[in-house]
Amino acid sequence: MRTVIVGSGSWGTALAQVLCDNHEDVILYGKSEKEVNDINEHHKNQKFFQQIIISPDLKATTDLSVVEEADIVVLAVPTIAIEGICRQIDPMLKKNVIIVNVSKGFHPTTNERMSEVIRRTISPENISSVVSLIGPSHAEEVIIRQLTSIDAISLKHEDAVIIQQMFSNDYLRIYTGEDEIGSELGAAIKNVMAIASGVLSGLGYQDNTRAALITRGLQEMIRYGVAFGAHAKTFNGLTGIGDLIVTCTSVHSRNFQCGFQIGTENSVEGFWANNTKTVEGVRTAKIVHKVAKEKNISMPICEEVYQILYHNKEPRECAYDLMLRDLKDEFE
Amino acid sequence: MRTVIVGSGSWGTALAQVLCDNHEDVILYGKSEKEVNDINEHHKNQKFFQQIIISPDLKATTDLSVVEEADIVVLAVPTIAIEGICRQIDPMLKKNVIIVNVSKGFHPTTNERMSEVIRRTISPENISSVVSLIGPSHAEEVIIRQLTSIDAISLKHEDAVIIQQMFSNDYLRIYTGEDEIGSELGAAIKNVMAIASGVLSGLGYQDNTRAALITRGLQEMIRYGVAFGAHAKTFNGLTGIGDLIVTCTSVHSRNFQCGFQIGTENSVEGFWANNTKTVEGVRTAKIVHKVAKEKNISMPICEEVYQILYHNKEPRECAYDLMLRDLKDEFE
Repeated sequence: MRTVIVGSGSWGTALAQVLCDNHEDVILYGKSEKEVNDINEHHKNQKFFQQIIISPDLKATTDLSVVEEADIVVLAVPTIAIEGICRQIDPMLKKNVIIVNVSKGFHPTTNERMSEVIRRTISPENISSVVSLIGPSHAEEVIIRQLTSIDAISLKHEDAVIIQQMFSNDYLRIYTGEDEIGSELGAAIKNVMAIASGVLSGLGYQDNTRAALITRGLQEMIRYGVAFGAHAKTFNGLTGIGDLIVTCTSVHSRNFQCGFQIGTENSVEGFWANNTKTVEGVRTAKIVHKVAKEKNISMPICEEVYQILYHNKEPRECAYDLMLRDLKDEFE
Repeated sequence: MRTVIVGSGSWGTALAQVLCDNHEDVILYGKSEKEVNDINEHHKNQKFFQQIIISPDLKATTDLSVVEEADIVVLAVPTIAIEGICRQIDPMLKKNVIIVNVSKGFHPTTNERMSEVIRRTISPENISSVVSLIGPSHAEEVIIRQLTSIDAISLKHEDAVIIQQMFSNDYLRIYTGEDEIGSELGAAIKNVMAIASGVLSGLGYQDNTRAALITRGLQEMIRYGVAFGAHAKTFNGLTGIGDLIVTCTSVHSRNFQCGFQIGTENSVEGFWANNTKTVEGVRTAKIVHKVAKEKNISMPICEEVYQILYHNKEPRECAYDLMLRDLKDEFE
């Protein structure tokens, strides 16, 4: 089976190397000629991984038509680009493929989850199923073959098993699962919590505060997910608490870094003035705010992040407002 | 109401300062004259907090008979000392007191949880209920008034509310709960996971590996707890995942440090040769191994920690053994 990975960013590159290590037939598509040449000629992707040497077996191309021969297409592009890339590849597909989604967030205007966007935009005859390959996985660590565990989630179990078996090896362990809603919502909303975690760190708060944030943040994610039909226990897994921990505690995370800047400056202004990167949690915070309000779901941490980002609320005040809410039972 | 805190270690001192900040009537008992004098004369507890100035309102004593006047007795001593101190204070108690337990682990010979030990050793007429005041809370952070959230767990809800209201303020937020079994088991077993987390860090593994460990560790804690009648959701709370995170990610944790040394040396020998401190997780690992075997509960991470500690298994081999188990569904 041939796999085409679309997107030569950090995670696309790391997953492509995993398949090379596993002696699978894989090719990486990137739109940047510079990055593609870097991979093919120097066995590096210096934009993301500096001087790390990646597998010399890894081949990259700027020709998207390689998807014509694909059995499996991995979409490793930002959430904002998913619809466009699906519309681009759909006419090229010649087989009934498994589409693997690795993005975490919502469609910017329709608020759909990524699997929903993919199913809406790829013709049914071209797609076997969507498999979400998500979990706690900094690309910077997978590229150097650090022990990592993630989930392959699909409504079609046998496709999840195919992806599990292709990608698993002695440093990447894949578990299967079927709760697409819970997994995708967890992986998306955790980015908002990571911004909150960064804000608290920037304000000078330490381990106790962060542990409380993560614990209470998990409750919010469960509430939101269950309102959409997710299973609560999914949030106990790699796409829930696992991804939440790694994003909330790591300086590798862009969402954490965004929050850290805001916390350090005790203001959002510097972030809006200078940010040029995709910070998924910033968009997700807006969507969660809107949907939670419509559906009447209590999301106090997400709401404070939204107020900081979009209404200039002072971060220090947000931290205290969260702390001084009515005393109550933990699972009330 | 008068509170006596028994134990002038780091957590006893931090909780005593909380009550001073809240203008409650509190006295701290310590058996070390040096520490007690340090608190009374210099407003410091240098053994634990170096040069930090603690509340000048905090009074300490070496006279345990202060418990005679207590309405609330907080036991802030290691698990190994709980039975002895209960037997010592029981004849002195003159009122029907709330006993607050803050220790996390099991009785060294009977394997009982701390609440069970307290109820067995304090005469029924002297005790209103046991409240466990536990959660993600490094004393080093509470003493400098960092935002912290913990649980007050009791089978008698109104006593949990009393403790919640006494201890809560603008930096310490207390939630109540009733699942004594789940809370105590979570808080105890997380120390074994913290050893595992330290081992992995010592071996050079990073954020992805730790997130996977914490996520899979949580599953083990839930399995163990449910086998004893705990509610699964309790492990999603502050005494479960919250405490697990803080202990597994923080250098403040003795359990983590123990594991870190073992991982760095890729051997347990140096730890056994030089350790002089109470590392609760080391004892807990032995008890969990024994009980899990008897009750047939699958605890693969705890088992590897046990094998490292007590059977000299090589830590690096343990990490790979965990990683290379059969591929499966996440919640199978």
